[in-house]
Amino acid sequence: MFKVEKVTNDLKKWIREWFDENGKGCNAVVGISGGKDSSVTAALCAAALGKDRVVGVMMPNGVQPDIDVSEKVVEFLGIRGMTVNIRDCFEAAKKDVEKALGAELSRQATVNLAPRIRMSVLYAVSQSVNGRVANTCNLSEDWVGYSTRWGDSVGDFSPLAKLTVHEVIEVGRFLGLPSFIVDKAPSDGLTGKTDEDNLGFTYATLDRYIRTGVCEPEDKKELIDRKHVMNLFKLSMTPCFPYEPEDEE
Amino acid sequence: MFKVEKVTNDLKKWIREWFDENGKGCNAVVGISGGKDSSVTAALCAAALGKDRVVGVMMPNGVQPDIDVSEKVVEFLGIRGMTVNIRDCFEAAKKDVEKALGAELSRQATVNLAPRIRMSVLYAVSQSVNGRVANTCNLSEDWVGYSTRWGDSVGDFSPLAKLTVHEVIEVGRFLGLPSFIVDKAPSDGLTGKTDEDNLGFTYATLDRYIRTGVCEPEDKKELIDRKHVMNLFKLSMTPCFPYEPEDEE
Repeated sequence: MFKVEKVTNDLKKWIREWFDENGKGCNAVVGISGGKDSSVTAALCAAALGKDRVVGVMMPNGVQPDIDVSEKVVEFLGIRGMTVNIRDCFEAAKKDVEKALGAELSRQATVNLAPRIRMSVLYAVSQSVNGRVANTCNLSEDWVGYSTRWGDSVGDFSPLAKLTVHEVIEVGRFLGLPSFIVDKAPSDGLTGKTDEDNLGFTYATLDRYIRTGVCEPEDKKELIDRKHVMNLFKLSMTPCFPYEPEDEE
Repeated sequence: MFKVEKVTNDLKKWIREWFDENGKGCNAVVGISGGKDSSVTAALCAAALGKDRVVGVMMPNGVQPDIDVSEKVVEFLGIRGMTVNIRDCFEAAKKDVEKALGAELSRQATVNLAPRIRMSVLYAVSQSVNGRVANTCNLSEDWVGYSTRWGDSVGDFSPLAKLTVHEVIEVGRFLGLPSFIVDKAPSDGLTGKTDEDNLGFTYATLDRYIRTGVCEPEDKKELIDRKHVMNLFKLSMTPCFPYEPEDEE
């Protein structure tokens, strides 16, 4: 059983202690997508540090049709919000890389470019407001590598990385977040598809498999395992040539 | 004693094996700064994989006065070179963040923005040319945190991360790189200052301290130790709240 009150209190304590050790008096900087992970992360930081110490950064790439949800999250939490539209930066990078390549960016390069530019922007904000950047990934996403390496997969501290999607929702409800936030279907914000469309299985299936080892329906097990193994590298630092000097002979 | 022939051969073998396991037939993508680390990395990749499988990417931010050195490195190695000027992307990010902040970027935010944009660009190239991104940091830089987290500090594979500056130079000479590359004073390419000006000690002092524990001059020990401890976080993944589900009672 997931003890939501205990876990939420432990999370707040961990965030406070992390800031005491790694940035006393600093502000938490959270990229706000309008989805539940970033909302719950911002809510936890506000509960742990006080809402005056949380900055929510919205980073649409051009027109984001559901940007009003992000604005409502910021308003609901009472945190400082700001919007940095990454369109010009994204388009400049795309144009200049394509010129150098003499070819179009691959689909995967295009998909991953935006999260990396968002990371760059988030750190530029953070380093200007005495901040520390929150990572907002959860265990379910990380389990199958549903993030961009060195983009949304990184940050200075990560409250939700060991909680499944369903556990994140429970924490969100416990913190009093409204339904339009915690019950929103997670989507990539890029293609109009939900995460579950992209992944090929539901978070209900994935979360149960992670926590109990039981995969239901069973025929998703192979796909989940394959994604897990293929994407483990995203959770590691860069592998390096393991030189050790020999002792003098 | 540093056995340069053995280490160079081991490095080439490690690079080949890493590609066999993590990107069979893929190309090595190396950001070429004109300095010795990126040059030696590109030379090692060319020696390990063949020069047809190495792409050198020059990423000046506007006018880079010594860009001809980078061009000569690419020409000397006989690898495919391309130039992506990050100026427009950098300026767009800076302008849009400053608009959102209602204030100028801090000095540190400005310094770290360029390496993060370079990382984003390098991966956009890499994902379009069936590539894997080389990290070019060496042990001496990493020891004192002389890199930007999630910028030049990352990559897909890292050949030099356990070699000191002096060991990298030896490998470069052994590979036949000319003096204008291996004997160039390392600099940040930003302020006109050399690394040694910025750090407050020489690489000769640092490398000897790393390999022997002897600090000469002794009064630099405290500064080196302080930088080392302060920057260890850059070599780690994001710390996360350590939730583990309890067994049912």
